Amino acid sequence: MDCHKIIKDTYVQILDIENKGAIATYIPELGKVDPAHFGVCLTTNDGTQYTAGDAHISFSIQSIAKVLSLSFALSLGHTSIWQRLDVEPSGSAFNSLVQLETENGIPRNPLINAGAIVVCDILCSHLKDPKNELIEYIRDVANDPTINFSDKIAQSEKSNGYRNVALVNFMKSFGNIKNDVNQVIDLYFYLSSIEMTCCQLSKTFGYLANGGKQLITNKEILTRSQSKRVNAIMQTCGFYDAAGVFAYHVGLPGKSGVGGGIVAVLPNAYTISVWSPKLNERGNSYRGMKFLELFTDTTHETIF
Amino acid sequence: MDCHKIIKDTYVQILDIENKGAIATYIPELGKVDPAHFGVCLTTNDGTQYTAGDAHISFSIQSIAKVLSLSFALSLGHTSIWQRLDVEPSGSAFNSLVQLETENGIPRNPLINAGAIVVCDILCSHLKDPKNELIEYIRDVANDPTINFSDKIAQSEKSNGYRNVALVNFMKSFGNIKNDVNQVIDLYFYLSSIEMTCCQLSKTFGYLANGGKQLITNKEILTRSQSKRVNAIMQTCGFYDAAGVFAYHVGLPGKSGVGGGIVAVLPNAYTISVWSPKLNERGNSYRGMKFLELFTDTTHETIF
Amino acid sequence: MDCHKIIKDTYVQILDIENKGAIATYIPELGKVDPAHFGVCLTTNDGTQYTAGDAHISFSIQSIAKVLSLSFALSLGHTSIWQRLDVEPSGSAFNSLVQLETENGIPRNPLINAGAIVVCDILCSHLKDPKNELIEYIRDVANDPTINFSDKIAQSEKSNGYRNVALVNFMKSFGNIKNDVNQVIDLYFYLSSIEMTCCQLSKTFGYLANGGKQLITNKEILTRSQSKRVNAIMQTCGFYDAAGVFAYHVGLPGKSGVGGGIVAVLPNAYTISVWSPKLNERGNSYRGMKFLELFTDTTHETIF
Amino acid sequence: MDCHKIIKDTYVQILDIENKGAIATYIPELGKVDPAHFGVCLTTNDGTQYTAGDAHISFSIQSIAKVLSLSFALSLGHTSIWQRLDVEPSGSAFNSLVQLETENGIPRNPLINAGAIVVCDILCSHLKDPKNELIEYIRDVANDPTINFSDKIAQSEKSNGYRNVALVNFMKSFGNIKNDVNQVIDLYFYLSSIEMTCCQLSKTFGYLANGGKQLITNKEILTRSQSKRVNAIMQTCGFYDAAGVFAYHVGLPGKSGVGGGIVAVLPNAYTISVWSPKLNERGNSYRGMKFLELFTDTTHETIF
Repeated sequence: MDCHKIIKDTYVQILDIENKGAIATYIPELGKVDPAHFGVCLTTNDGTQYTAGDAHISFSIQSIAKVLSLSFALSLGHTSIWQRLDVEPSGSAFNSLVQLETENGIPRNPLINAGAIVVCDILCSHLKDPKNELIEYIRDVANDPTINFSDKIAQSEKSNGYRNVALVNFMKSFGNIKNDVNQVIDLYFYLSSIEMTCCQLSKTFGYLANGGKQLITNKEILTRSQSKRVNAIMQTCGFYDAAGVFAYHVGLPGKSGVGGGIVAVLPNAYTISVWSPKLNERGNSYRGMKFLELFTDTTHETIF
Repeated sequence: MDCHKIIKDTYVQILDIENKGAIATYIPELGKVDPAHFGVCLTTNDGTQYTAGDAHISFSIQSIAKVLSLSFALSLGHTSIWQRLDVEPSGSAFNSLVQLETENGIPRNPLINAGAIVVCDILCSHLKDPKNELIEYIRDVANDPTINFSDKIAQSEKSNGYRNVALVNFMKSFGNIKNDVNQVIDLYFYLSSIEMTCCQLSKTFGYLANGGKQLITNKEILTRSQSKRVNAIMQTCGFYDAAGVFAYHVGLPGKSGVGGGIVAVLPNAYTISVWSPKLNERGNSYRGMKFLELFTDTTHETIF
Repeated sequence: MDCHKIIKDTYVQILDIENKGAIATYIPELGKVDPAHFGVCLTTNDGTQYTAGDAHISFSIQSIAKVLSLSFALSLGHTSIWQRLDVEPSGSAFNSLVQLETENGIPRNPLINAGAIVVCDILCSHLKDPKNELIEYIRDVANDPTINFSDKIAQSEKSNGYRNVALVNFMKSFGNIKNDVNQVIDLYFYLSSIEMTCCQLSKTFGYLANGGKQLITNKEILTRSQSKRVNAIMQTCGFYDAAGVFAYHVGLPGKSGVGGGIVAVLPNAYTISVWSPKLNERGNSYRGMKFLELFTDTTHETIF
Repeated sequence: MDCHKIIKDTYVQILDIENKGAIATYIPELGKVDPAHFGVCLTTNDGTQYTAGDAHISFSIQSIAKVLSLSFALSLGHTSIWQRLDVEPSGSAFNSLVQLETENGIPRNPLINAGAIVVCDILCSHLKDPKNELIEYIRDVANDPTINFSDKIAQSEKSNGYRNVALVNFMKSFGNIKNDVNQVIDLYFYLSSIEMTCCQLSKTFGYLANGGKQLITNKEILTRSQSKRVNAIMQTCGFYDAAGVFAYHVGLPGKSGVGGGIVAVLPNAYTISVWSPKLNERGNSYRGMKFLELFTDTTHETIF
């Protein structure tokens, strides 16, 4: 396929439709982003990148980073992770407490807030300097030392993250948080504050399209088996209560963030990232979803 | 890969482990099946079949037939189906009424009981003789005129199917059943009674591995796009509250039934069916799940 | 207190305010009632009646009859009733299935639909001709042979009672219905169809203000202890998800019906019934609630 | 009735049965209490006290204090309280978050944890020195300057109160907490730490048996109408998910605490308090419940 042309054409078509939805405002910093931004980057497994629009502007990847913290925890070899987390779709909103109550504080999966908080707790247990080691890990995976947390976003999360504070305390009450709640939630807020451009994002996630190996260097980030399983989790749990819709309309494993970013993977082929800040009613980027639907409708390449 | 050898070797290894779990007894007829049965059949897209064990013994495919009724409804071209059904994983047990209540009688997806009942209602609206036209459709898809309902199983379902009768009446109270509740639930009970061998089952589902086209004849059962979407729905919703576990450990779209059958699809390659009546605690065949895990661990071929 | 004057004055004041709310239309027959009706009758324990407005016009008492079927079951001496029913407020709507699912088919109390259906099942188990024996019992309690079911209402319930049919089948699936579902639900629909005037209603319920004994005749309907407990259940469970509001604003044990009737009891003193068909958003008579609030605000007599 | 004799006889009978249940251990300090304690005190509206057993030993009244903080908030005249709280029974456990999520952070009533936390928030908004003014108010109601918080219990609550910290943060995320979460939860933990003897407890609650007026002094604590309504709320919401059972078996408005205390009110007659630390499976004092059942069975005096 002529990737360059399809990316450009699809971009133009989506740019043409009305930019619907609403920008996330639950943390003040996110609300300041220009809703007109729209960027795309596809990185093939040989490292070639095809871009359109604002592919080189940094944005808050938010929940997309949950895939990276999960990969970090898996790479540390702690198999006990699955005693404290499930791998099932939640069937409910990203920050729901209902299931936690009926399921004794065990989150449904590592890609909802509660699950990512448990992953942060696991990292706190096994790292000496969790915040620094986490960002070093992510720079390493991204093969890009410039990637960083945003202090502004992290502070903004902190000063408004009451529901996440509720989640960590609630799980602590069930015994499923081992470390100090403040340390754990601090790491979580920093995790949520990571910024990348579309090009950095699709390059970073290249290992999930490449059997667990970093693009170009072939350095092992995850084993082949782990990599497949992270893709499986993204497929079933990556879009909160819209995982089925994404599988149905796009057909690639992926993960979205409330900053308006989405990353998706076609195993053995490429990763693609899209960014447009306005969100649909289920909290996923409106134009991002439309772009990926039209893109896979055109390429006919999905995992199904 | 040497399919023949892998199938045989995997079969022997699984046969060797303890046959755990419990046979479904919620309908008396199912309880009469010999729990020692164990059969496998893989059908490649060129029609070749590789078998092991009881691959030629008929069993009740139960919920697996929900994929066929969905395909039938889609092939009739009624796009309004998605106004009456969602495509999201349910996150709960196969016969739960809880979500229906909070979601106004709209089932989460067509592969849980409630959703399959709505599909039966849609078939009742668009067919003159739903029961006969349904079995004719399935014979047609299977390219096998011997496939049939089991009257015994259907009667057994009827005389014990109180929860399904509850579901159809509950949805009727929300206006999401258009026809007479007795007609709809009768069709549903017959749908659940279909019997196939492993070989018939994997051959029948071949169209989902073949872009919507029947194996060998290349007759279009579904369009390529519909076929991908049915696979996507199986992936996210095919195993009740164990969809994530199946994606994680097996990594293929599939569907299970309480008769102990499972069918799974590797798009563009093959379909595989397994049958062993004892179920694990989540209602999926114990040995069937173990077999498929070991099988894809060996082949390294999954959609991820 | 000058009952006569307080009743008249309160009636006039409530008549003066806007008649808000909506008449129940979920069964067609109820929708035909003139929404302007408004009647009140207070019966003191010596049998004196004070009335206002349409106190002598018959209406469908609907769920109010659930108190009578419960009394009947208790009077039969089957203490096992509390193994199949709880006595807790439901905290949810009158026809909710959610709790039934998490609580294994055991209804929260005998005054929600599910609980009353279990009571009907108990009656079916212990009576030879349940329908006739039930109406005979009620005539006996009322000391009035003219009280009857309404065939029209019962048929109307039957042809629209999908949710109640769902409830009985759902409980049957948990083993908490012992008789044929059709027989049980038929009795339930007839129970719901009983018609009384305000004067008949407050006289009938007199035994609950009189330590279990029928007014004037002093015939024992329930023991003193049973009578107190039926009042306790009305107090905590008589108004669906508005039991607390009724306790808070009125302060008497009572029971409402979607026909717009309410009956309330001041133990050792009187029973009072009100009827006005328009319902507030929680399904209780709008003017009925307003009347009782103002009435007990004036008399200062409540159980608290 | 011969109160003295009935109290003594009932006490002896209950002392005789096995002391079942388990002491609350969710906060370490509570776990240190001797489970053999058992005390009773009945205070009639003329101030006479009848006691049995450990009626003069202090214990942690825990949730019983929620009635006092509610009374304080009501006495401040802030009617807006009912926009931030409901008065319905919760139908679920005392610390459930489920309803809060579906009901947008509005607690079901002021006697469950979430509701009492909102009351604390209201007090924080209207008092200059909430902690001191609260204990002064309670001393004033009790007419006893020796009543105090227990710092030990409060600290113990704080160091283990993750679920309550979850609740306050969760409600803050819905906007239903106006003050700093730490200030609010600190007041709540102190409220929960108040200690009284049975005699102090039944005397303190005397105003609820006396139309809102303090016993003997007749000082108005609440208006008559407010007093009735607090009783109504205790009746429907005072025993978590056992409110119906208490109404059914005891028949008095009351409130229990996990310290093993229960207080109950017969309006216009008396208040009675019982203390025995072992709790039944619903979190209410095992011997306390048994005592009150037998007591009202003997006196035949209930509100019903």
